[in-house]
Amino acid sequence: MYYMGVDLGGTSIKVGLITEEGNIINKVSGPTEVEKGPEGIINKIVDLIDEVCKLTGIKLEAIKAVGVGIPGVSRDDGLVYFATNLFWTNVPIGQSLREKLGLPVYIENDATVAAVAEFIKGGTKGTNNSIFLTLGTGVGGGLIINKKVYSGSHGIGTEMGHMVIGKNFYDCNCGNNGCWETFVSATAMNKHCIKLLEEGNKSTIIDKVAGERRLINAKLIFDCATEEDEVALLVVERMIKYLAIGIANLINIFDPEVIAIGGGISGAGNLLLDKLKKEIVKTIYVKNMNITEIVLAQLGNDAGIIGSGMYGKMQLEEGQN
Amino acid sequence: MYYMGVDLGGTSIKVGLITEEGNIINKVSGPTEVEKGPEGIINKIVDLIDEVCKLTGIKLEAIKAVGVGIPGVSRDDGLVYFATNLFWTNVPIGQSLREKLGLPVYIENDATVAAVAEFIKGGTKGTNNSIFLTLGTGVGGGLIINKKVYSGSHGIGTEMGHMVIGKNFYDCNCGNNGCWETFVSATAMNKHCIKLLEEGNKSTIIDKVAGERRLINAKLIFDCATEEDEVALLVVERMIKYLAIGIANLINIFDPEVIAIGGGISGAGNLLLDKLKKEIVKTIYVKNMNITEIVLAQLGNDAGIIGSGMYGKMQLEEGQN
Repeated sequence: MYYMGVDLGGTSIKVGLITEEGNIINKVSGPTEVEKGPEGIINKIVDLIDEVCKLTGIKLEAIKAVGVGIPGVSRDDGLVYFATNLFWTNVPIGQSLREKLGLPVYIENDATVAAVAEFIKGGTKGTNNSIFLTLGTGVGGGLIINKKVYSGSHGIGTEMGHMVIGKNFYDCNCGNNGCWETFVSATAMNKHCIKLLEEGNKSTIIDKVAGERRLINAKLIFDCATEEDEVALLVVERMIKYLAIGIANLINIFDPEVIAIGGGISGAGNLLLDKLKKEIVKTIYVKNMNITEIVLAQLGNDAGIIGSGMYGKMQLEEGQN
Repeated sequence: MYYMGVDLGGTSIKVGLITEEGNIINKVSGPTEVEKGPEGIINKIVDLIDEVCKLTGIKLEAIKAVGVGIPGVSRDDGLVYFATNLFWTNVPIGQSLREKLGLPVYIENDATVAAVAEFIKGGTKGTNNSIFLTLGTGVGGGLIINKKVYSGSHGIGTEMGHMVIGKNFYDCNCGNNGCWETFVSATAMNKHCIKLLEEGNKSTIIDKVAGERRLINAKLIFDCATEEDEVALLVVERMIKYLAIGIANLINIFDPEVIAIGGGISGAGNLLLDKLKKEIVKTIYVKNMNITEIVLAQLGNDAGIIGSGMYGKMQLEEGQN
């Protein structure tokens, strides 16, 4: 028997047929046509599922459950409260897909399903309690507690990116000042870099983007930091300082075995990890017991497909819905 | 059958015989003679347990388990990593008590056992996921997730008081700046009040303590705030602002059904609660879904005895040790 994993993103939909062990047999993808609204996107998901079935010669009846990772917040029964990038509010995607497919369907936040993927076959495999963080345009989080997904009593938990950790020079999209993601996301790094350049700090960065500030990105900043560019070093240093503060907060609260870091910024790899670990040791409350391991996430772009499929499996086995 | 609840504090030890339902049949207490070291304190606990047994006519054999709430951090098997006020490090109190009593013994942090008490018969009863916060000299926390105690993979979790949420004018005892408890504990309120007085702000507070700043306390500050004393109002306002920030962080991460607030500061009651709720609504991420209920803890001074006894019951039933 198999599972279907659906990674519904703001720009593309990826669908994969997954084995019981979380391996992808085959996958397809298509654009997320946001302008077609929920119905259009839901139909596209059904089409892509059909396509994978045809490609693999597997019939729908051989699929135990479908999991969908969404860029938003949803309820247990698959109602999406909101998904900002899709312009969705209160979309019953779970119910629609159940009706169209005749299969059990489970909906979860994209960072949470990525946490499942890392737990099943990535950086947090074999642990009881783990946290997955995705550092990209924003900061997302997923929690595994006692080997089960935890996303809160109403599905609106694990918004670690909106944990307030200090005062910042710009406000978060959510309206608050000081949200973690305004210190450590790629967006945050770009904004800090541009601020330092506007303040007249000398840097090779501005030449590398031929004066076009909008082309500045986290990868370029990390690259320039390895070349000892002072602005880049300041941006990376501040980012890592606040990343450590937030991670230490999570360790002080959850005391997990492992925290896995994914998303675009994790591409900085060991440069990020080595500095980060040194900062965390200074910041955690129980200092002589630095037992939470910090690792890079392993599954990259496939985390969404694998995680949503395996989330479907976990929920089915727990007897949800 | 019964449970024995032991509330081991920095100044007193309270021991109570508890029913299956969490009711106290009888209780005794004695001073915590810290100078006698772990062995002296452990013997005192055994003596107090004997005393309760004699008082109630219940034999040790009728006791299913003993739970002990400690002012520190411990491992699953009952090793206390540290308990600052007792000057303990690596004390195997669980093992010692098991040998002396011949009963199953379970050790947990005092805030966590208080969370259990509130969950069994207090403000968070009937919920799946809840948080208990105790606001006193410091800030402690206890977590119930899926109707079970959660204290981390190594017993060092739920240190919410050391979640960094901003910059503060003084450092925390733990060495960091910005820990939540430096904004919202009784100590924090006193320090902020004294700072405002030292800056020359007029207040009736200084007269009420006859010039003795060390007599300033959170209750007095709340009382003066109800009398519209400007310094007291500033202290309460700042405390509530940061209490809301930290609670909103916890809601954004855990999305619990209920958060119960106990400890000395919770004595301010509805004055605190009403203002706090208004602040939290402004701060949480999912603003149109203000579903976490904020309540006052109900069990007061008995929370330690009831909670530790009921913690023993929960652990026994889960088959721990």
